[in-house]
Amino acid sequence: MRRVAVLGVGMTKFGLSTKSQVEMFAEAALEAIATSNLKPRDIQALYVGNVLGDFEEGQMNIAPFCAAELGLPPEVPATRVEGACASASVAIREAFLAVAGGFYDVVLVGGTERAMAMGTPLATRTFAMGTDGRYEEFTGITFPGVFALLTRLYAREYNIPLPKLKEQMALVAVKNHRHGVQNPLAQFRKEITVETVLNSVMIADPLQLFDCCPFSDGAAAVVLATEELARKLVPKPVYILGIGQGSAGALFRQKGLPRIKARETAAKKAYAMAGLTPQDVHVCELHDCFTIAEIIASEGLGLCEFGRGGEAVEKGETTYGGRVVINPSGGLKAKGHPIGATGAAQVYEIAKQLRGEAGSRQVEGARIGLTDTLGGDGSTVVVTLYGIE
Amino acid sequence: MRRVAVLGVGMTKFGLSTKSQVEMFAEAALEAIATSNLKPRDIQALYVGNVLGDFEEGQMNIAPFCAAELGLPPEVPATRVEGACASASVAIREAFLAVAGGFYDVVLVGGTERAMAMGTPLATRTFAMGTDGRYEEFTGITFPGVFALLTRLYAREYNIPLPKLKEQMALVAVKNHRHGVQNPLAQFRKEITVETVLNSVMIADPLQLFDCCPFSDGAAAVVLATEELARKLVPKPVYILGIGQGSAGALFRQKGLPRIKARETAAKKAYAMAGLTPQDVHVCELHDCFTIAEIIASEGLGLCEFGRGGEAVEKGETTYGGRVVINPSGGLKAKGHPIGATGAAQVYEIAKQLRGEAGSRQVEGARIGLTDTLGGDGSTVVVTLYGIE
Repeated sequence: MRRVAVLGVGMTKFGLSTKSQVEMFAEAALEAIATSNLKPRDIQALYVGNVLGDFEEGQMNIAPFCAAELGLPPEVPATRVEGACASASVAIREAFLAVAGGFYDVVLVGGTERAMAMGTPLATRTFAMGTDGRYEEFTGITFPGVFALLTRLYAREYNIPLPKLKEQMALVAVKNHRHGVQNPLAQFRKEITVETVLNSVMIADPLQLFDCCPFSDGAAAVVLATEELARKLVPKPVYILGIGQGSAGALFRQKGLPRIKARETAAKKAYAMAGLTPQDVHVCELHDCFTIAEIIASEGLGLCEFGRGGEAVEKGETTYGGRVVINPSGGLKAKGHPIGATGAAQVYEIAKQLRGEAGSRQVEGARIGLTDTLGGDGSTVVVTLYGIE
Repeated sequence: MRRVAVLGVGMTKFGLSTKSQVEMFAEAALEAIATSNLKPRDIQALYVGNVLGDFEEGQMNIAPFCAAELGLPPEVPATRVEGACASASVAIREAFLAVAGGFYDVVLVGGTERAMAMGTPLATRTFAMGTDGRYEEFTGITFPGVFALLTRLYAREYNIPLPKLKEQMALVAVKNHRHGVQNPLAQFRKEITVETVLNSVMIADPLQLFDCCPFSDGAAAVVLATEELARKLVPKPVYILGIGQGSAGALFRQKGLPRIKARETAAKKAYAMAGLTPQDVHVCELHDCFTIAEIIASEGLGLCEFGRGGEAVEKGETTYGGRVVINPSGGLKAKGHPIGATGAAQVYEIAKQLRGEAGSRQVEGARIGLTDTLGGDGSTVVVTLYGIE
């Protein structure tokens, strides 16, 4: 298995866009290609994560249209993958396999989504198709509902009074909004307080508006290549040290909730492959689609003890100066969450951090980074470890 | 690169189904696993092709739900890929890379779709999202329209009078319906005549009803594994000798229509990898979504000279007793076309043929088989060569 490096990365501003998904992808991709010191003609294969292009703008099979927009020739296979909100990370894993397996030397991969432009009612309804159609979706459950249930399960499992847990969750939002202020590409760049969260409108009890990430439009892209090429082309290649993907069915099939088995198995695989432990991670972009989701993820990734993820936030352990900086980009909460693009945007941040190019949001001395992307109600999780020499 | 074998294959009857896509997939998958002399617990990774599960039954991210239905554990990555009507073949290519690259020894791959149950108006409209959303779809073009245009371009390019070409196209339908009679899993098992086609209702001039494949529900699955395992587990392993995937954008970007560049580049790759030429192919399952599509494909794959695909059908060169038997299964035309499953159903047929297990539709002495699957209006094509020792 060959070593795989991240060369250039690219990302649009997240928020509301009037561009099509193909156009947004091309914007991010051209940045990723240019910062790899490559030209589009150097790309040998393309993977695109996209979730609901058909509902969002009547576009399926988006990958070859992205390829055509970049002027790539017919020889370049262009493949769309979909794993709900983990789509781009699933795409990155396929691209990783293609380079590591010796099939291609330079692969472009990323994701694109127009989730904000379609509007909240349709986005909420279509996102819910990421749950199991036979056992869950028809009950009317949507993702705020799923994570509201997980919040109550979490409070009961770890015997934390709900008001206490809600305050810890609010601190997640406060932290990620504070981080997002430093990110010029973030959808929200405004500090909030615990009161902002706790006084905001109720969405799915006990989740309030500021417990939830926004709907977003955006795209992000990454160039993966062999170590040999990376050393030639860029001054600071970042390497994929470990990667794992886990799966699960409907919630009723998942044992041990609120813990997410698909994440824990993916993380175990990634750590084992990298020969690393959670203690080695300096900076992490994880899937904070809701504030409780960050707490659950930080524990499932081994960055905090089970039942103590909220406490870690309270103590400042997951921000600058703490043990590990979680979501320096602002996370899904403040940076935004264009679902099919999110996994690639996480890599964008980790690559910038490991290269020391993150400007005012730089995590000092970051050499090992982790991304965690969750699709559906725990049905697809990809965990990846990145390092720099 | 390790050699990759096809072990067991499975397929539902194509036609109208009241089963969900996950249930259909599980039916096909369990057959593929059982005929591989394996158990579900032996599966190490899963790839599922599916196109419009969200529109068809409100199900996205279908792969982990298929995995859960089969009882696969969280360690098994389950990935959905979508390449319009070529989805299952794109999935098979990803599965091939995963085994060939040394990442997994046993991978389950296939596709599932409920295109008939959703009804013709919505199916026609949603399928059209496989064209370019910015340049084509808004004009009102649907796939019968695309292939009607290609028919006229073809007639002009090769200077064949349209009535003559239409008769040749009708003969494609007659042949594939005749083949389908022998296939117990085919949607249509009824012989037709040239008159049936030419007297049928006009769909998109010059394409008539019997020039068009049906909407279908169905699933198909295949187990891919290493050569070593194949030799242990099954008496007659079939090997993937070559595989190629090509891409293209909107029709206006495609030079040289009615020839399909994405196909020609995919075929070139597959033949080169296999060290074979079109003359070596004994049996072929190709993408006859419309009768003209079979003619164009047979030429693009090198099985007939350009401009003479229709003549080859007239002369019986593409049926039993001819140079190469095209679509012994009945093809998309008679067997049916559950779009996300089609590529895997093609492999089902080729594997049966190469193993000499195709019963009354057996192509005598078939040792080299080819599958060709087209997605969108030429935007994604996968060509694969199979052989038996």
